[in-house]
Amino acid sequence: MDFPSLLRNPADWMTKSGPNGDIVVTSRVRLARNLKGMAFPGWSLKDDRSAVLQGLRSVIEGLPGMEDAFSRELKDLDAIRKQVLVERHLISREHAAKSVGSAAIMNPQQTLSIMINEEDHLRMQAILPGLQLHEALAAIDIVDSGVERSVKYAFDPKWGYLTACPTNLGTGMRASAMLHLPALVLSEQINQVVQAVNKIGLTVRGLYGEGTEALANLFQISNQSTLGESEREIIARLERVILQVIDHEKNARQKLAVEKPELLRDQIGRAYAILRHAHILGSKEALNLLSMLRLGIDLGFFPSEQRSLTDMLLMEIQPAHLQIEAKRKLSSEERDHLRAEILRRKLKNLPSPGISSGEEPGAGSN
Amino acid sequence: MDFPSLLRNPADWMTKSGPNGDIVVTSRVRLARNLKGMAFPGWSLKDDRSAVLQGLRSVIEGLPGMEDAFSRELKDLDAIRKQVLVERHLISREHAAKSVGSAAIMNPQQTLSIMINEEDHLRMQAILPGLQLHEALAAIDIVDSGVERSVKYAFDPKWGYLTACPTNLGTGMRASAMLHLPALVLSEQINQVVQAVNKIGLTVRGLYGEGTEALANLFQISNQSTLGESEREIIARLERVILQVIDHEKNARQKLAVEKPELLRDQIGRAYAILRHAHILGSKEALNLLSMLRLGIDLGFFPSEQRSLTDMLLMEIQPAHLQIEAKRKLSSEERDHLRAEILRRKLKNLPSPGISSGEEPGAGSN
Repeated sequence: MDFPSLLRNPADWMTKSGPNGDIVVTSRVRLARNLKGMAFPGWSLKDDRSAVLQGLRSVIEGLPGMEDAFSRELKDLDAIRKQVLVERHLISREHAAKSVGSAAIMNPQQTLSIMINEEDHLRMQAILPGLQLHEALAAIDIVDSGVERSVKYAFDPKWGYLTACPTNLGTGMRASAMLHLPALVLSEQINQVVQAVNKIGLTVRGLYGEGTEALANLFQISNQSTLGESEREIIARLERVILQVIDHEKNARQKLAVEKPELLRDQIGRAYAILRHAHILGSKEALNLLSMLRLGIDLGFFPSEQRSLTDMLLMEIQPAHLQIEAKRKLSSEERDHLRAEILRRKLKNLPSPGISSGEEPGAGSN
Repeated sequence: MDFPSLLRNPADWMTKSGPNGDIVVTSRVRLARNLKGMAFPGWSLKDDRSAVLQGLRSVIEGLPGMEDAFSRELKDLDAIRKQVLVERHLISREHAAKSVGSAAIMNPQQTLSIMINEEDHLRMQAILPGLQLHEALAAIDIVDSGVERSVKYAFDPKWGYLTACPTNLGTGMRASAMLHLPALVLSEQINQVVQAVNKIGLTVRGLYGEGTEALANLFQISNQSTLGESEREIIARLERVILQVIDHEKNARQKLAVEKPELLRDQIGRAYAILRHAHILGSKEALNLLSMLRLGIDLGFFPSEQRSLTDMLLMEIQPAHLQIEAKRKLSSEERDHLRAEILRRKLKNLPSPGISSGEEPGAGSN
């Protein structure tokens, strides 16, 4: 699969909806694995890294489900194309900085994505729409078992899978869900929720992982510890918490709809209006407006089939996507113009929220 | 004329356009006069004030052009109604604080407005649309001469008309124009212009006179000195400066249209969009959005017949007007809701700026 095809075919999670899709955008599970007897990528010599890459690449490309995969050594992708993969959550920011000796492989649906020679020899991820952590684990487990039939993993009976960073030791698993929590933000309860989740040993992060800001009211909740519990136990615990956060968000939405209907209409009406009529839109503002549009869809202000459009736009208005669209490097100012233009064009046929004529929108999904 | 009629009939300056009406909203000339041999209102006893009031009121009501005038002693108007007169520039904020012994009289077109027992016995104002300072002087001159046929003014051959405050001594005249200068604000040249105007002995103020903020990009330019020159000389000097400021604003508009067309489209598009779809709008934000809408009209983004609608809305969304509309006292939050509702309703049929479909609007009025 070539890059233009990858770009043309949005990832499954962008076009399909999953359980609790009004609040959970994606579920991800990634496994870190290393080959027995080989130095971790950060410590290994160039030739060893290349040998690991060649070996693993052919194993992964040969797995069932990886027919017509997008598979590239990172030296063969320019900075903007690598950044597109980051924006789609297919590779990490750290991996995008790598070149010779590292590779990225993903299936055409972009539900499976494998990084070779990131921090570990293998980082394998499954990403699915909605709340599907167990399903994502099952999907990546198949890849993991497939690889293990051909190679020997670095594994210790006491410590489990050995990883470059001790925080991944044991299961080597990081499971996470991306939650859209606009009502908890609007009603100023989000800090409380984040603190509570942190207290019980889970981590809350922004849109692009560690150290990133919570843009578009999107929050990633993931397990912190990888040791001492089975994968299934970790995910079950994570899912219980996520279901509670979903409940909090639903309650906050209902409460806002009852107590502050004008605030909701104002925020959603403005988002609709500005997205349709602005000519200069920074990334942060645009993401936050799309968040309000998504909330509007959930609350019945807009038809629900618009949700995937919103999720796709969240990707398409990001810097690297814009520059691919423009087929050249763009200044920040040029990006702000193109971003506004794309949003105006793609949202041209979005029906008015019907709130300016005083009509009552549907009661929403609660 | 009763209050509801006054309210229903917008002032001439709100519905009609005058010379340079794209930039000059109104021209005003007011004269301060006192009766010979009577203490100034601030020093006089209640009975003397009442005698002055009764005498002047009957004289003014009898003048030609003042048939069916709106004439009230201020004790007969509640705080909100007095505030409506302030918002329409018909009486001063100071006058609205007065009650027994003070009155306001205005003709049905609201081009002439006379305050009795404000700081002086008489404050007589003519207000006209566009740049019509000489015409405003002529209009108020007729009133002034009419009054003088019946009363004797306090006048000193050396000092001219005597006034309670020495800053009004001489002609007793304050002439001013309200200018809409969005392009000078957008291009950050406004401070320079304000400083230059101040240096040559004129004053620049915000929407509601002394000490008020420049809301909606509206600036009042007026003469500072009232002494040592004739009324005509003062106005000629003021007008020359105003014409220069108009030129600066026109140049700034042209420059923006050429150098930053996207900034203009963005500001005007957002203003249109937010005014049509917001549900909560503070006074300051609404005034600034209406300013951008007015600029859009001047630049050909909207039909020019919409300009008077904008000028009327500038009044109608102000706190006292809103409370008259609601027929009750409103909290700040309730006002923000009603303001947004009125704007959505009144601008419902405003055609889209046509900029979201990528069409080029007309080149504008330059």
